[in-house]
Amino acid sequence: MKEIQIQKNVLSKNDEIAAGLRRVFAEKSLLVLNVLSSPGSGKTTLLEKTARALGSSLRIAAIEGDLRTDRDAERIRKAGVKAIQINTGRGCHLDANMIAGVLPQLDLDNLDVLFIENVGNLVCPAAFDLGEDAAVLLVSVAEGDDKPAKYPTAFLKADLLVLNKIDLQPYTNFCTQRFREDVAKVKPSITTLVMSATKEMGLEPWFQWIQSKVAQKKQSSTR
Amino acid sequence: MKEIQIQKNVLSKNDEIAAGLRRVFAEKSLLVLNVLSSPGSGKTTLLEKTARALGSSLRIAAIEGDLRTDRDAERIRKAGVKAIQINTGRGCHLDANMIAGVLPQLDLDNLDVLFIENVGNLVCPAAFDLGEDAAVLLVSVAEGDDKPAKYPTAFLKADLLVLNKIDLQPYTNFCTQRFREDVAKVKPSITTLVMSATKEMGLEPWFQWIQSKVAQKKQSSTR
Repeated sequence: MKEIQIQKNVLSKNDEIAAGLRRVFAEKSLLVLNVLSSPGSGKTTLLEKTARALGSSLRIAAIEGDLRTDRDAERIRKAGVKAIQINTGRGCHLDANMIAGVLPQLDLDNLDVLFIENVGNLVCPAAFDLGEDAAVLLVSVAEGDDKPAKYPTAFLKADLLVLNKIDLQPYTNFCTQRFREDVAKVKPSITTLVMSATKEMGLEPWFQWIQSKVAQKKQSSTR
Repeated sequence: MKEIQIQKNVLSKNDEIAAGLRRVFAEKSLLVLNVLSSPGSGKTTLLEKTARALGSSLRIAAIEGDLRTDRDAERIRKAGVKAIQINTGRGCHLDANMIAGVLPQLDLDNLDVLFIENVGNLVCPAAFDLGEDAAVLLVSVAEGDDKPAKYPTAFLKADLLVLNKIDLQPYTNFCTQRFREDVAKVKPSITTLVMSATKEMGLEPWFQWIQSKVAQKKQSSTR
């Protein structure tokens, strides 16, 4: 019981900090996307491709969450945008306080989109609000079609679902219909984009989604 | 600081229960394997194939950890062995107390191997001893070759490393040499078995490893 209470306190403290972040992001008309997935579903590759495709029309930055190494931040920097690496050590997710801690390194007045790439984990990140406008959940075809039923909390948190590595489908037993049926049971309202980030297949709807979200954010701030 | 202390207390309580489990498993000469991986790396498929291949020569049971559903236990039962499902809800790993809670459902006197399939997660399960003889870590080729450097705690905990879904390698940019170099930096002593459980490639060394572990366990208990 004591542990449950502590957990509740941690979450309520996180929510408080996240609410503060959300106010800052609103003031700055900055679209913030919290990107979640299992390890190796293709988050960093998707952000690299996005930075290269949209970097000339949108001002982009990224915060990269990993237990160790700054490899992901390095990859994103090579794609031409500013990236800050947070190492969580043994920590299984980013929290709002970690985001607040690195914000001073970003020029928020001169940004349109901030991607937060969470630690690769389909469980813990779902419980922690980072003040984002939307959570984007990536699932790779190689992970199997049973993930929505088995990891519902991540799907419930998600505002957009990306089914990635679709180029691998012919070599796996992934059934798109089973996947869609399971998604519909957990979160019927969600939009699913099907793509292969590595092979640059199906990226256009993703770019359009980001651009419309940026436009919405700017509009809501100027009202 | 208070949270860190609570976390230490949780882990020390877990270690105490795990030590008790380890004594029970030793008395019963029962080999216990804690199987870890990201979501969708192929743990359940490997256990299905193992149950079918070794079920006639070894007495096998499985404990399946998932947030929700009893799909994995159902799959294992269809392969002909007893399987108990633990649903963790929002919990990101199994702990020793959960294992202790379901042990009465197993006839420990008539078992040679107990597989514990942990929740799909490359972070949290690494911190919780379940009283196992060995931790087996699965990584799928589709997850990329950078996992050892980015998730070192799981690799440090592992006693055996399984590189799965090798049949997908031609369709990915996975580099076996980079993977091996990263593994060698984190845990140079570890044995790596390369396989495709789905395609039943490279399973024989895995079966032999289990059989030799069972023999060792029986021998150490009769000394």
